[in-house]
Amino acid sequence: MKIYTVFVEPKTSGNIGFLARCMKNFGLKKLVLINPCKLENDAYYQAMHARELVQDALIYDTLDEFIKDKEITSVIGTTGTPGGSYNVPRIPITPEELGKTMQVNGNIALLFGREGDGLSNHELESCDVLVTIPTSDEYPIMNITHAATIIFYEIFKNKKSYPIDDIDISSYEDKEVLLQLTDSIISKLDYAEHKEKQVKILAKRIIGRAFMVGRETRTLRGTLKRIDTRIKKSHEE
Amino acid sequence: MKIYTVFVEPKTSGNIGFLARCMKNFGLKKLVLINPCKLENDAYYQAMHARELVQDALIYDTLDEFIKDKEITSVIGTTGTPGGSYNVPRIPITPEELGKTMQVNGNIALLFGREGDGLSNHELESCDVLVTIPTSDEYPIMNITHAATIIFYEIFKNKKSYPIDDIDISSYEDKEVLLQLTDSIISKLDYAEHKEKQVKILAKRIIGRAFMVGRETRTLRGTLKRIDTRIKKSHEE
Repeated sequence: MKIYTVFVEPKTSGNIGFLARCMKNFGLKKLVLINPCKLENDAYYQAMHARELVQDALIYDTLDEFIKDKEITSVIGTTGTPGGSYNVPRIPITPEELGKTMQVNGNIALLFGREGDGLSNHELESCDVLVTIPTSDEYPIMNITHAATIIFYEIFKNKKSYPIDDIDISSYEDKEVLLQLTDSIISKLDYAEHKEKQVKILAKRIIGRAFMVGRETRTLRGTLKRIDTRIKKSHEE
Repeated sequence: MKIYTVFVEPKTSGNIGFLARCMKNFGLKKLVLINPCKLENDAYYQAMHARELVQDALIYDTLDEFIKDKEITSVIGTTGTPGGSYNVPRIPITPEELGKTMQVNGNIALLFGREGDGLSNHELESCDVLVTIPTSDEYPIMNITHAATIIFYEIFKNKKSYPIDDIDISSYEDKEVLLQLTDSIISKLDYAEHKEKQVKILAKRIIGRAFMVGRETRTLRGTLKRIDTRIKKSHEE
């Protein structure tokens, strides 16, 4: 799958730079500029370590030219104003839905419209999919590069496993041991039967919500063992 | 639920403005600045229609001062460098997991660290939850306001679909009492000093991450009191 990020008629160099940086943060490399403003230093400055994406950007006069030249199979447009009075009715999907459905091969173009005005009706009509970010009704207009980064994030999230997966994960068995320990402790606290059950469920929920890594699980296991032993002693003596 | 967006020692006015705009796009209103740079025009210019968030920003000298003053029940930190070789284990969750677990009321602080350097170890230690955005290994360092907008988006996305506002709240005092009890228990377990500190931080984090409602807090308090008394007995006898 080739994903082209297409900025249609950008007006400020700074935004081109920010867009490049956001792309690289999520592993995207191909930047296309349609009839852009003059590229000032700001484009390279804001790109930070994604400068080469700006240097290597493909530049076209019109969107149609680019679509033909790169044999784009799927054009995805972003719009901040879903619905509206377009001739062609289009139901926008969410970034999450886009991320989950974009598992298909092909040459994909992700379009971002000019600052302020967005994509034109003609451009929107050439899109196969429209995406809208759910925002507050009070102030729905996002900066273009912030909107783009959410789209990139959702695509990346679904393409790749999280970094958390490589870290030391707490296994199902680890969790079972913790629950046996909390059950053992709670059983020694002289609760009435129905209350004891409630407390055990609460302990299970708290452990479940905590998203612990292995190291944390082991520390907690040690602590619960110490507590369990101490309470045992108090009963025996 | 009150969510405070806390920018710790921002270095440039432009980023404060961008952050305010991103906040308002996702319905967040309370901006807090800890020891910020001087607020230049750029803060208001980049905020666009979120200018009033910058005007109304609460300013504190230190993070601790703010946490006490606003009786924060849950501190959520963001970090671009998960894991690492820190003394205190850092367990990041994803923005998506954060959005899904943040169903309960309380005073919540979302921390964003200074540009370039992020949050300090001391600041990270005061966090109940750490969040990391999954990014490309090649260039994981995001601009602070682009990272923030992804966190806001995930919270907003999940807030919309959950009725979270009228649940029975676990207060700042409730949480303090729980932490006193866990500290009291852990102090009696004969840990070496540095280990005891680690275990106390772990207990604090597990409680912070659990986003408990009032009823759960009261049940847990009762259980911890029973445990604390039993262990006391074992020591005294």
